[in-house]
Amino acid sequence: MDAIKEVQAPFEMGVVVPKRVRDQIGVGYGHDCVELLVAEFHKVGLIVDRVAGLHDEFLKLAAPVDILGKAAAELQLKKRTHIGVDIQFEWDEAEAFIRQADGSFFSWCERFRCYSHMIYGIVNKSESAIILKSNCRDVRWEPGEPLVWKLESEAIVKEVFPLHDERKRKQLLKRWALNWWDLTNQPIDEIYAYYGTKIATYFAFLGMYTKWLFFPAAFGLLLQLVDFGSLQLLVLPFFFICIISWAVFFFQFWKRRNSTLLARWQISYSVGAESAYKYMDTEWSSFHSSVGLVKKWADGKAREKENFQREEWFGRMMRFRNDAIIILSIICLQLPFELAYAHLYESIGSDIMKFGLTAIYLFAIQYFTQFGGKVSVKLIKDEQNENSEYRANSLVYKVFGLYFMQSYIGILYHAILHRNFRTLRQVLIQRLIISEVLENLMENSLPYIKYSYRKYRAVRNKRKREKGPTARKSYFTSRVEKEYFKPIYSASVGKELEDGLFDEFLELALQFGMIMMFACAFPPAFAFAALSNVAEIRADALKILAMYRRPVPRVAATIGAWLNIFQFLIVVSICTNCVLLACLYDREGNWDISPGLAAILIMEHVLLLIKFGFSRIVPEEPDWVKANRMKNATQAQNMCSKQLLRNISGGRGAFVTGTHKAD
Amino acid sequence: MDAIKEVQAPFEMGVVVPKRVRDQIGVGYGHDCVELLVAEFHKVGLIVDRVAGLHDEFLKLAAPVDILGKAAAELQLKKRTHIGVDIQFEWDEAEAFIRQADGSFFSWCERFRCYSHMIYGIVNKSESAIILKSNCRDVRWEPGEPLVWKLESEAIVKEVFPLHDERKRKQLLKRWALNWWDLTNQPIDEIYAYYGTKIATYFAFLGMYTKWLFFPAAFGLLLQLVDFGSLQLLVLPFFFICIISWAVFFFQFWKRRNSTLLARWQISYSVGAESAYKYMDTEWSSFHSSVGLVKKWADGKAREKENFQREEWFGRMMRFRNDAIIILSIICLQLPFELAYAHLYESIGSDIMKFGLTAIYLFAIQYFTQFGGKVSVKLIKDEQNENSEYRANSLVYKVFGLYFMQSYIGILYHAILHRNFRTLRQVLIQRLIISEVLENLMENSLPYIKYSYRKYRAVRNKRKREKGPTARKSYFTSRVEKEYFKPIYSASVGKELEDGLFDEFLELALQFGMIMMFACAFPPAFAFAALSNVAEIRADALKILAMYRRPVPRVAATIGAWLNIFQFLIVVSICTNCVLLACLYDREGNWDISPGLAAILIMEHVLLLIKFGFSRIVPEEPDWVKANRMKNATQAQNMCSKQLLRNISGGRGAFVTGTHKAD
Repeated sequence: MDAIKEVQAPFEMGVVVPKRVRDQIGVGYGHDCVELLVAEFHKVGLIVDRVAGLHDEFLKLAAPVDILGKAAAELQLKKRTHIGVDIQFEWDEAEAFIRQADGSFFSWCERFRCYSHMIYGIVNKSESAIILKSNCRDVRWEPGEPLVWKLESEAIVKEVFPLHDERKRKQLLKRWALNWWDLTNQPIDEIYAYYGTKIATYFAFLGMYTKWLFFPAAFGLLLQLVDFGSLQLLVLPFFFICIISWAVFFFQFWKRRNSTLLARWQISYSVGAESAYKYMDTEWSSFHSSVGLVKKWADGKAREKENFQREEWFGRMMRFRNDAIIILSIICLQLPFELAYAHLYESIGSDIMKFGLTAIYLFAIQYFTQFGGKVSVKLIKDEQNENSEYRANSLVYKVFGLYFMQSYIGILYHAILHRNFRTLRQVLIQRLIISEVLENLMENSLPYIKYSYRKYRAVRNKRKREKGPTARKSYFTSRVEKEYFKPIYSASVGKELEDGLFDEFLELALQFGMIMMFACAFPPAFAFAALSNVAEIRADALKILAMYRRPVPRVAATIGAWLNIFQFLIVVSICTNCVLLACLYDREGNWDISPGLAAILIMEHVLLLIKFGFSRIVPEEPDWVKANRMKNATQAQNMCSKQLLRNISGGRGAFVTGTHKAD
Repeated sequence: MDAIKEVQAPFEMGVVVPKRVRDQIGVGYGHDCVELLVAEFHKVGLIVDRVAGLHDEFLKLAAPVDILGKAAAELQLKKRTHIGVDIQFEWDEAEAFIRQADGSFFSWCERFRCYSHMIYGIVNKSESAIILKSNCRDVRWEPGEPLVWKLESEAIVKEVFPLHDERKRKQLLKRWALNWWDLTNQPIDEIYAYYGTKIATYFAFLGMYTKWLFFPAAFGLLLQLVDFGSLQLLVLPFFFICIISWAVFFFQFWKRRNSTLLARWQISYSVGAESAYKYMDTEWSSFHSSVGLVKKWADGKAREKENFQREEWFGRMMRFRNDAIIILSIICLQLPFELAYAHLYESIGSDIMKFGLTAIYLFAIQYFTQFGGKVSVKLIKDEQNENSEYRANSLVYKVFGLYFMQSYIGILYHAILHRNFRTLRQVLIQRLIISEVLENLMENSLPYIKYSYRKYRAVRNKRKREKGPTARKSYFTSRVEKEYFKPIYSASVGKELEDGLFDEFLELALQFGMIMMFACAFPPAFAFAALSNVAEIRADALKILAMYRRPVPRVAATIGAWLNIFQFLIVVSICTNCVLLACLYDREGNWDISPGLAAILIMEHVLLLIKFGFSRIVPEEPDWVKANRMKNATQAQNMCSKQLLRNISGGRGAFVTGTHKAD
């Protein structure tokens, strides 16, 4: 058993409590709030390190592996065993379970769940309420009430947040964020060990996408630089077909890579946007064993079945209604607005007016998007989605709808109605350069500004209270307080549903749409995108390592709804590129189906066929992953089928003979 | 245990052996072949009934349930238990397993597998070869050799085939085949009990399809009979949109119905063309536990992985090559042929010439299709498909490609190039009426003619040999001999890969394509189809009950590849209908994109969107089925997770400490 214990557990969770003001604590009745909390933490088995900050006190928590193991067993956590199936964890049988690649026993995601369970699982086990004293007030801790919830609701525990592990963070900084010469290579396994599946999946996707982008980037540049003369008319459609095939293949290979990664990380999760959730729960190993559903399903009675069906359809109708609301409001409210802006921009002559118009537009669109995001979040809360990942995906679709309209409609307007390819290219370059450069700058500076401001305010307040420039140096000894001042890694819309990856994926998807949908109008866009993505990898790494607090790990192990969005963008880009080609070749604007136009129409249909046909050529899951999984399932089954059988027939024997007697 | 035994086991298998010619059997060395076979059958526990026929002797076999149970345990058959998971069958724990809806212990499919196992499992257990004597020759039965294989290869056992259960057959005839007034209702559960999943699934699909067809049939007739005046131009596109939505919804609801049926029949099998095979094996319960793959996968070594990947890609390339061959040969050989016929038909004036041309065409196409089918079968045999259902699907796709070209290209030619809507409608009516009526007649009369011919020949031979009109009445006392004369229910292409359902599905798919692809040109086609399908249900039932031998049951529990073909036809029909509409509204043939044509193009894209979007609205699997499955999995897991854990850590404890010491 000792074999499993690790040398020294790092502090991985922080709890912020108010600093004790000495003279206000009376003697006599009641317990001091913070002291009790620390004592309770000790009782659970956590190692507590108390650090005094400017205004607050920080409790740094660490847990030895055996304490984590006990919590995991209480949580009934499922964990991969040596035979490859996931079984409920039990500390006594710890040898049966596989260790992580870096030698630790639990993954970061599992550790986080255990920590949360321990921290929020402290309840008042005595029979009477306990009076807790904070600096200036008393709190009644009722029997059976969880302590940390109570203190959080009384604003005594200000925050509970995961802490960076300084040693590993530095290592990652050196080997990942500052390692510019690796271009698209990243230490994905280390990222997984430190941040969990979701963030590692994002970076794996970003790396692979960027690597694949080099091909169309080179092709696009070639098209821009070389003059093909009379062949020009044939080169562009060829480029178009190559790009679409490239995109289709990329996403199929990404699915394969994703399942390979999951197999390496020993996570059971089927890849493929839809199947991910559908089959997840049916397998041996399910992360969330949707207990709600199971409980409701008492026995195979017809009435139960009807209830089930009614609920299912009601939920579906609700979701449909919400989607309809969003789609209609996008079409009825946002579309006219975007078109009006594009039209005004086209018709206004003076540059100053254009500038003013754009300023007004940007201001309005900011407001609009914020509002739309809020409405979406509100709508989604009504939906009875089965789990939080479903809900997050639902939000992703809705918000992306807004951004889709906002990003592309104006450009399409320039392209199709006015056939103004110069403006189109201008707008594309603007968007690509400005959005990439500015957004990267913003993304990296904004959290730093936030952090600096919070730090500055804290120091000012402190100084104000202490009235005098005393011991300025002692202010920032504690790293944990610095981390507390850093902003949370969260999405710009709906903080509670999505983390900062939402913004990253949105940026990627909008970029992908921009370069794909207008590929024929501006082939070198791919090169811009490739360059900016190489920068994006390191910038994002730096941001997540240095600018933000350590994010809360999430279970999602695929890119989820974004995969569908990318697929959707491919289909849309087939259509838009056909329109663009038609416009390019049909300059007179009389829209007659000359052989050329007919050829484009045929090409569109062939490409759509390719899109839906080719995805069948590349299987989503490598055979060896599948074979491995099957081997595991068979092994587990053989191991315990006899045992299981005896259990069933033992319980059921009476039943069978009973019914027979009744006959 | 006695509770499980059934009153009287029906005879369900027949073995055909030559009749004994009394005077040719000498006394002395060796055993009589048939006698030994019967003795061996008795030894296994089978009940044998010997019936003398005209030329042959028939051994009718029946097995009591305990004998079947022992065979099932030997086969390691997986069977659904009371807690809902499928576990390897063991006779001692028989109470743990669920009975069929009709009270029998094994389903027909399971019984058939057990019978086959018992019949073909008889081997020579002695140490020396046994000399068997048939009528006029001797056979050496070597040690360890299966008896029936041997006798089959020596043509002594002529055939082994499943027998009809007369009582149940009569019941089904009355309640199903002759019950015309039920229209689309059929006793699906009884069909399942008698024929197994695949045939029951076909009839469930046919029934549901016909029922759903009534709506477009009514709509189509309305369009034909009522004159909408100036609204005519709007009614047709509206009809088109309704039809496409109808088709999309129908197939989604069919998937739901399929999973409901499988849940009712206690079969674990995910619905959905792709997922069916992909996830089937990952679950607790897999019909074929692809042992090959598992065996090859020794341990997670990198070299193994590479081998796997190489094999995977090689297999995929082979399949891709085969598909390319088929597609290219269809395009390069069949397409010109079809176009030539259509063109000649269009350009020839005289009716006699047309008739002659059609005769030649029909003759040639018959030959062509046969040839194509044979090539496909040959190609598929090269492919290393993982299981027989995969292989069958591969054949389905290839053969359907041939028929698709053959059925629709000519019609499209008339419609698009010549805009000859009169010919189009004529051809449609011809095909619908002639194909339905004639094919039904053919289908039902051909097996009867075959049967009659075989019977006639047998009687003639008999009479010839006996030289004289002796006891004519005694010829046909045995029902089993009549059944032996009936033809096998097999496909017209590739007997070894598919059964007769291939032809039925092909007919349905071609009909579906015909009515969908030309819906706008001829709306009342739906009414034709609905009528002919109502007749088809009963005709097929009659055929399968009375005209053919009882089919060998198959495991496939979905409509498999056909689902994809139907979906493909929907997509194609979106495109063709758009073209038809464009032709209808653009009579002048100058092909300019007037607002009307642009509207049609937009409509096409919207409909394609609907096609791929709407399938997300209706989930493939009802929630209650999913919840049930999850409950079962959870239950099974909880029951044996501790046991499993102990097994693993018991075996692995040494390993873990060993590696630790090495550190």
